[in-house]
Amino acid sequence: MGTIEELQQRVSVRVFEPTGISDEAKASILACAFAAPTAGNQMMYTILDIEDPAIKARLADLADHQPFVASAPWVLVFLADCRRWYDGYVLAGETPRPPGVGDFVLAGQDALIAAQNAVTAAWSLGIGSCYIGDIMENCEAVRELLELDPWVFPATMVVFGYPTPQQRRRRKPERFDRQYIVLTDRYRRLTDDEQRAMYTRRGQDLGTYLPGFCRRKYMSDFAVEMTRSVGAYLEAFKG
Amino acid sequence: MGTIEELQQRVSVRVFEPTGISDEAKASILACAFAAPTAGNQMMYTILDIEDPAIKARLADLADHQPFVASAPWVLVFLADCRRWYDGYVLAGETPRPPGVGDFVLAGQDALIAAQNAVTAAWSLGIGSCYIGDIMENCEAVRELLELDPWVFPATMVVFGYPTPQQRRRRKPERFDRQYIVLTDRYRRLTDDEQRAMYTRRGQDLGTYLPGFCRRKYMSDFAVEMTRSVGAYLEAFKG
Repeated sequence: MGTIEELQQRVSVRVFEPTGISDEAKASILACAFAAPTAGNQMMYTILDIEDPAIKARLADLADHQPFVASAPWVLVFLADCRRWYDGYVLAGETPRPPGVGDFVLAGQDALIAAQNAVTAAWSLGIGSCYIGDIMENCEAVRELLELDPWVFPATMVVFGYPTPQQRRRRKPERFDRQYIVLTDRYRRLTDDEQRAMYTRRGQDLGTYLPGFCRRKYMSDFAVEMTRSVGAYLEAFKG
Repeated sequence: MGTIEELQQRVSVRVFEPTGISDEAKASILACAFAAPTAGNQMMYTILDIEDPAIKARLADLADHQPFVASAPWVLVFLADCRRWYDGYVLAGETPRPPGVGDFVLAGQDALIAAQNAVTAAWSLGIGSCYIGDIMENCEAVRELLELDPWVFPATMVVFGYPTPQQRRRRKPERFDRQYIVLTDRYRRLTDDEQRAMYTRRGQDLGTYLPGFCRRKYMSDFAVEMTRSVGAYLEAFKG
């Protein structure tokens, strides 16, 4: 199967075979993460490989109580790292400014681009994965658990493992059509008709689907907590 | 060539053949972007396809004066879009909270993951690309030019085109070794010896390389402007 087909068919995997991932496969996946585009060749991220089962279990709990994180064969936390280069500058005799919110966002982008290369590489080896954005919640507890520097932000967590046969057969959820996602030259808000059609085209009814989604996800405690927690991380980047 | 090799060999391309990209290739690349993992199947991004040469030229200038942006055959701006779902919720009769900084970051991650799938798909078709993070600068001018909603953030710009023979032969810059990027279980700062060795291992001397890099990049006007501008975008997400 070619790269294009692999990218289009990839689905998130949340139930894994107990089989571990070989060191060779891990090395290939990490090499692809490192090879990802990175602003100024800086690699402004650190990857935590979580081996301690107690830390895995605690992360599963802190990231919105998702027990499958604790039993995943391979758990990586992608940290946006604004500390490593700062320390290097000081060591080289420079007097750098403290990192700001621009650096926070740019380092987070470096981390996510690397993470997506890891996800794509893993899938091409038959290894499934799932992003856990909830790692951004509970700033204070996650900071303490992972001994994070204030200039280091847990941008995402990705869990890896071989999919069970049931997971391998899982249908990929329908995406929105291109006409609602790609606009020419300038941004504009969708019309009400476009909003409704966007859901209809993927087999959902806006009026029945969105109220439940809004209450269960967007207005949930964990979504509110994510914004509070990200705000707490941002404090360290306000000079 | 397999996916793993493609990911490892990909380099950024900044000089393009004048050849345009076919509609078929664009459709494949966009389909891969849409297929990327996305939190809750939300696709919290809008992609602007910049066709107007005047807008391309202005973006080239606003994104730290990089003329190759203006002449790139295909220019996409990936917007983190916290407006589309908000409008849907309201249309469905809900009373959503305004988006916060957690939503800002999560939507930005959705956008970057999709962008990286586009980059990977393009490369597999022989099409080069380059991320332009500088699109995050000059908030006010970019907002006006692209008619951005306050809850829409230009997370990144990616330019695409067929590489010139010279660009095809370009050596990929050495990355840092795994031992400095991947840590087990907990974060820690690198020691001074590790900092020095990290650069030595990729053929650079910290003492001669970092002062120039620090002054030219990290302390530059555009880096300071990026933080100011991102701060301006963040204001709309502070409820």
